[in-house]
Amino acid sequence: MPDAALPTSAPPALTPHLRPFTGETRVTHAVFPGHTNHHGTLFGGEALSLMDSAAFIAATRYCRRKVVTRHLDAMEFRHPIPQGSLVELVARVVRTGRTSMTVLVELFREALYTDERELACTGTFTLVALDDQGQPVAVPALEPRAAGR
Amino acid sequence: MPDAALPTSAPPALTPHLRPFTGETRVTHAVFPGHTNHHGTLFGGEALSLMDSAAFIAATRYCRRKVVTRHLDAMEFRHPIPQGSLVELVARVVRTGRTSMTVLVELFREALYTDERELACTGTFTLVALDDQGQPVAVPALEPRAAGR
Amino acid sequence: MPDAALPTSAPPALTPHLRPFTGETRVTHAVFPGHTNHHGTLFGGEALSLMDSAAFIAATRYCRRKVVTRHLDAMEFRHPIPQGSLVELVARVVRTGRTSMTVLVELFREALYTDERELACTGTFTLVALDDQGQPVAVPALEPRAAGR
Amino acid sequence: MPDAALPTSAPPALTPHLRPFTGETRVTHAVFPGHTNHHGTLFGGEALSLMDSAAFIAATRYCRRKVVTRHLDAMEFRHPIPQGSLVELVARVVRTGRTSMTVLVELFREALYTDERELACTGTFTLVALDDQGQPVAVPALEPRAAGR
Amino acid sequence: MPDAALPTSAPPALTPHLRPFTGETRVTHAVFPGHTNHHGTLFGGEALSLMDSAAFIAATRYCRRKVVTRHLDAMEFRHPIPQGSLVELVARVVRTGRTSMTVLVELFREALYTDERELACTGTFTLVALDDQGQPVAVPALEPRAAGR
Amino acid sequence: MPDAALPTSAPPALTPHLRPFTGETRVTHAVFPGHTNHHGTLFGGEALSLMDSAAFIAATRYCRRKVVTRHLDAMEFRHPIPQGSLVELVARVVRTGRTSMTVLVELFREALYTDERELACTGTFTLVALDDQGQPVAVPALEPRAAGR
Repeated sequence: MPDAALPTSAPPALTPHLRPFTGETRVTHAVFPGHTNHHGTLFGGEALSLMDSAAFIAATRYCRRKVVTRHLDAMEFRHPIPQGSLVELVARVVRTGRTSMTVLVELFREALYTDERELACTGTFTLVALDDQGQPVAVPALEPRAAGR
Repeated sequence: MPDAALPTSAPPALTPHLRPFTGETRVTHAVFPGHTNHHGTLFGGEALSLMDSAAFIAATRYCRRKVVTRHLDAMEFRHPIPQGSLVELVARVVRTGRTSMTVLVELFREALYTDERELACTGTFTLVALDDQGQPVAVPALEPRAAGR
Repeated sequence: MPDAALPTSAPPALTPHLRPFTGETRVTHAVFPGHTNHHGTLFGGEALSLMDSAAFIAATRYCRRKVVTRHLDAMEFRHPIPQGSLVELVARVVRTGRTSMTVLVELFREALYTDERELACTGTFTLVALDDQGQPVAVPALEPRAAGR
Repeated sequence: MPDAALPTSAPPALTPHLRPFTGETRVTHAVFPGHTNHHGTLFGGEALSLMDSAAFIAATRYCRRKVVTRHLDAMEFRHPIPQGSLVELVARVVRTGRTSMTVLVELFREALYTDERELACTGTFTLVALDDQGQPVAVPALEPRAAGR
Repeated sequence: MPDAALPTSAPPALTPHLRPFTGETRVTHAVFPGHTNHHGTLFGGEALSLMDSAAFIAATRYCRRKVVTRHLDAMEFRHPIPQGSLVELVARVVRTGRTSMTVLVELFREALYTDERELACTGTFTLVALDDQGQPVAVPALEPRAAGR
Repeated sequence: MPDAALPTSAPPALTPHLRPFTGETRVTHAVFPGHTNHHGTLFGGEALSLMDSAAFIAATRYCRRKVVTRHLDAMEFRHPIPQGSLVELVARVVRTGRTSMTVLVELFREALYTDERELACTGTFTLVALDDQGQPVAVPALEPRAAGR
C-alpha cells in the first residue's frame, strides 16, 4: 500500500552527457571565519588538510583500493589566503610506482568579486595502496596519455 | 639582504593549458565518521549544507557579487550515503532573472572501491545578488549556449 | 569498599512537575563567528543543517523508530541572521502518513539585547520510519488534538 | 521592477498563539559519532560545553545584556551518555544578585527508541552582566513567581 | 621488489635523551575566530571542554585504564581570554583514592606578542578507572614525591 | 556594593616554582572518532594541521611577532595512528635565519592502555616573522645552548 503523504513525482531528468568524474578531483571552498587565524587568513594547517584530503580522493579513485599517505614533498606557501576568498584544489595522479601513486595537488586562490586567480601553493603527495591485511598491493600503471592530460 | 635559510627555488612550472574554472563548481568529499549519524550514513543536514555551499560559490563566480540564498525548491533524498563513500557536488547556474540566479546542484554518491556511482539528490537554489547597501542588483543574463552546456 | 575520595552527596532534588518533553522539540543556538560567512551572517547551509537536525529529533521522538529524511518542501529565507543573534528552532510533527511523518520546523531569529524576535524561515520535512531491514514501517496516526496544538 | 524568477507566494500562516520563548531555554541534540570518545559515549567536555552555552543563552535572555560566566558550582556526572542518545538541556535563571544571575542547567539523556529518560547531570552557573566598558551592571531582580515556576 | 617511487631515506636521527612524557600533560592552543563568541573572547564552554580533555589524558596516562569524569569541583573564570591569545593547559594527577584520581588542570592565558602570562582558571576533576565490564577498578596510589612535584 | 551572590573565596594557591613555558611547545590530543577516516585511523591532513599549529605557536613564542608558514620540508608518515591513541606534538625552534625560524615538530603516538610510545612522524617548518606592514622583520638569533637542548 503506497503512502499517500509521500511525493510520487519522477526524479528530475538528468542531462544525459553529464559525466562528472574526469580523472581530476576538484574541491572548492569558501574561506569563512571558522577556518582562519586571528589575522583573518587561512590557517596553514587547514590548507594542508584540504590538500591531503584531495590527494586521498584522487588516489582512491585511481586504484579503487584503500590508500594511505606515505610521503609529502617539500612545499612552499607563497601567498596568504584572506577570509572571503575561494580556494579550489585540483588533484591528479601524475606518476605511479608498483604500489604507489604520486598525486599533484594545486591550490588556487580566487577572489570572490573579481576574476583574479593565482596558484597559491602546490603539493606532491605519495600514497600507497594496501590490501585487506594492510600490505602494499600493486596499482595499475599510469598510461602516458592520462599523464599528459 | 636575502635570508639564507629560506628556499629560493622557482615555483613549479604550470601546465599552461590548465584552466581550472570551467563554469561548473565541483566539491568532492570523503564521508568520514565525523559527518555521519549513528547509523553510519551521511546526516541529511550535512548534505544540505554542502549543497548550499556549492550553490553559493557557483552564483558568486557567475556574478562576482555578494549573494544570498533566497529560495530552495522542493527536493528528495533518494539514497542514503554510507560512511566510506565519496560525495561529489556539481553546481551550475542554469537560469537568471533580473537580480537572481537559479543554481542546479547535483550530489553524486560514489563508492570508494568500485566504479559504482549514482545521483543521490538534486537541489535547485535561487540566490539574489546584492549591492553594498544590501539592495538587489542586476546580474548578467545567462547566454543560451552556457545554459545548454 | 567505598572510595573516600568520591563525593557522596545526594543528587539535587528535581522539581517534581518538571516534564521536559512536550511534543515540541526546541533547539536554541547563539550564532558565533564559527557559524557565519564572511559577511558575518549565518551561513544558509548551517540553517538548513540545524533545521534538518530538529526535524530528525521530532520525528524520532514521535515514532521511536529509525527515521530518514525523504523530502523537503520548497522554502524561503526571508531574513539574514547576523552573528550575535540567537536562533531558536521549534519542530513538531504536524501530519502523518502510513509510514511517514511531516515535521514543521520554524526558525526564529532573536536579538540578543532587545526583545525583537521574528520568524526567519519555515521548513517542512517528510521523514520515513524504517525497520531493522531498512524497510518502511507504520507509524502511529497523529491524533487530531495533537495536530491542532 | 519585480524579478519574475523569484517566488511570490505569501509566507505560510503562523499559528497565532505560538509564543516560542517561555523563560526556559531548551537545546536538544542527537549524539552522533563526531561528539563521542572512543568508547562511543559523549565526551565530558562536550557536555560541559553544551551546558555553558545553554546557561549563556538563558542569562542573556533574562537581562538582555552582555554576560560572562564567572563561576560554576561543583557537579557530578552520574550517567554515561552513549552515541545514539538524545540529550536535552533545560536552563533557567533561578536566582539573581545585584549584577549576577544563577542559572540551573539540567541535562537529560533520552533514549532514541524507547521512552526511557533520566537526568544525567545538573550544573549551576553564575554569570555576570557587563556594560559597554566591561563593568558589572545591575540586572532585574527575579520575581518570586518566576522562581517558583 | 621495492617500489622505486617510494623514498628510501632513513628516518631523521632523534635526540636520544628526548623523553617527551614527564607526568604532566600539556595542551597549547591558539585562540582563533572559530573558538570565540561574538565578543571575540574564548567561549566558556570551549575552555571547559579543553580542560576536561586534558584531565582525561592525564588520568589515562596515570593508570592506563579506561577512565570517566565523575566529579568537577567548583571553579571560577577570572579573566576573559581574547581571540589572538594562546592558552596552555597543564594537567597533573594530584591525589588518588582507591579507584579515583583527582586531576588539577591549570589554564594559562599567554599573550601572543608580549611575555604577559597569567593563570586564567583552575579546575579540579575527579575521574574513575573502569574495567572492561564498566566497574570501578583500583588505581596505583600516588607516591608522595610525585604529588610534591 | 559587593554582590552577595558571587563567591568571594581566594584563588587557589599556585605551586610557586611552576613555570609552565620551557621553550618547548607541547600539544596532546586523544584521537576520537571525529578525527579519523573510515578505517578508524587519524586522517593525514589532521596530523599535518596539528603539526602546523604547533609550529606556529613555537615560532610565535620565540619571536613574539606575527609569523606565517613559508616552507615545509619533505616528510614521511611511517605509522598509522588508530582511533583511541594519544598523539603528543613537541615543537621547538632549532635554527634561525635573519627573518626566519626553522621549527622541528615531532609527533608521537602513544597507546592509551600500555606504555607503548613511538615517533610517528617528524616535520620541519620554516616560518617568517612579519611587521605590521606584512614585511619580513629580523628575529633574535638562536643561542647555541638553546639549540642544543
